[in-house]
Amino acid sequence: MSDNLNILIMGGDARYLEVIRKLSNEVAKLYLIGYDQLTFDEKHVKQTTMETVDFGIIDAIILPVAGTNEDGKIETMYSDEVISLTEDVVRQTPNHCTIYTGNANAYLKNITHDKQLVALFYRDDLAVYNSIPTAEGALKLIMEQTDVTVHGSNVMILGFGRVGKTVVNLFSSVGANVRVAVRKSADIARVTEMGLTPVKLEKLEQEIVGMDTVINTIPHPVIDADIIAAMETSTLIVDIASAPGGTDFAFAKTHGIKAMHALGLPGKTAPKSAGRIIGNVLLELLRKQKK
Amino acid sequence: MSDNLNILIMGGDARYLEVIRKLSNEVAKLYLIGYDQLTFDEKHVKQTTMETVDFGIIDAIILPVAGTNEDGKIETMYSDEVISLTEDVVRQTPNHCTIYTGNANAYLKNITHDKQLVALFYRDDLAVYNSIPTAEGALKLIMEQTDVTVHGSNVMILGFGRVGKTVVNLFSSVGANVRVAVRKSADIARVTEMGLTPVKLEKLEQEIVGMDTVINTIPHPVIDADIIAAMETSTLIVDIASAPGGTDFAFAKTHGIKAMHALGLPGKTAPKSAGRIIGNVLLELLRKQKK
Repeated sequence: MSDNLNILIMGGDARYLEVIRKLSNEVAKLYLIGYDQLTFDEKHVKQTTMETVDFGIIDAIILPVAGTNEDGKIETMYSDEVISLTEDVVRQTPNHCTIYTGNANAYLKNITHDKQLVALFYRDDLAVYNSIPTAEGALKLIMEQTDVTVHGSNVMILGFGRVGKTVVNLFSSVGANVRVAVRKSADIARVTEMGLTPVKLEKLEQEIVGMDTVINTIPHPVIDADIIAAMETSTLIVDIASAPGGTDFAFAKTHGIKAMHALGLPGKTAPKSAGRIIGNVLLELLRKQKK
Repeated sequence: MSDNLNILIMGGDARYLEVIRKLSNEVAKLYLIGYDQLTFDEKHVKQTTMETVDFGIIDAIILPVAGTNEDGKIETMYSDEVISLTEDVVRQTPNHCTIYTGNANAYLKNITHDKQLVALFYRDDLAVYNSIPTAEGALKLIMEQTDVTVHGSNVMILGFGRVGKTVVNLFSSVGANVRVAVRKSADIARVTEMGLTPVKLEKLEQEIVGMDTVINTIPHPVIDADIIAAMETSTLIVDIASAPGGTDFAFAKTHGIKAMHALGLPGKTAPKSAGRIIGNVLLELLRKQKK
């Protein structure tokens, strides 16, 4: 049961409007900081400020997908006020108060001490659900950036993890000639089983010729100068791996190859769906949370 | 063999750049009117004008996808000159001269008399190939206009012809919950066989509730006031049927429902692929053409 909980949402983007909508009916009170440019009709929702909120009654704090920056500052899309999560604020919350965030940096891990910190985006379920708007965002971007159909085009996808698998499924469904660059022999086997063409990552330089689009999902330097030099200049690189990505963007630029680092695709492409995904997982966790 | 032919291209858009590229190596001479803002390196290509070209040596005239308007005027994207195809011009061409157009109107049929007039877009093969960039264009548009993923969204597709089938295949591949509104019992059977949900067109009013997106491919008034009135205001209508479409756009507007008439999607979304499709079919026809 989550209907006896007092929840505080601090900051967030368009996705959190859906999170607010989803949570508002399932908790005792939903306090918001960082939304003063909006109004909410839901009766359990109350806008508040860092100065007036009573942290002593808060059962859970929900931070944005990005969490805080290295100084504790929290991103707000619907407020001009600067808000931060500090060690002092955390200390004012009850012992059982859980802090939910998308991603957790060293600062956040450090100030939460003995409090439970849950990084939602480290969860496999959320990562898999979230890969759906990510892959659709990549598809939309590529449709906008190229003058050919995805159907029948040559697409090289690097990586076959939680995001890579979804991107592979989507692009092969749309009718692209999909090659998947992987390292593990089990992944080569799986890609083959799917009727697609596996490429060994170490042979990427030879296999990259003739590609219309290269999509990278590996968060390590994989598309280096040698590989970029082997591409045709008409090839488009779309890197969706988390910052700093896996592409030598500087070399691509000097080489005349268009390379885009596309970050935060779910929030840009489908904020409502992306918010629903976060809201569903949060609700499930809050229902299990003890007061 | 087409390499002894003199071909004249009159007008055209970005798709025709790919047509020119494809044809330039396969014909004796490719004359262009309506491209004076561009330069071409291909050696068989020659830019000319209505005044200087010798229509007496032209074996085939290629008109734009739209053909001419009702006064004979031809659309040009790369020229400010006004060009027209008149009865007098047609009379100057040899008897065997074939006139290729995308679509043919009454004016064109009237002035070509005994000359062979080929309307490429009436051909089944071209219509099916062309439905690929059409469907991708609709997908791109819907991704841009909605804040949810296509995956998991409720999509009603009206019509199951050459374009409708491709749209159905694409959206179901991407993971939408696809319903297909059709009239014929054989189509209901086929939609069912595909694991999708058929809807009888006459019951559309009851079945339209809860749809995120409605895509119309039927070139008759099918989305009328009654059907629009039954929709939620959050539903998006994308009509891709040729002008005037099948939607009561005026009623949709007064009813607060977003309805878009998306025309010429192949040329907008993927001009190179769309041009390649036209070029391939043209080449096949020119190779069969007798001098």
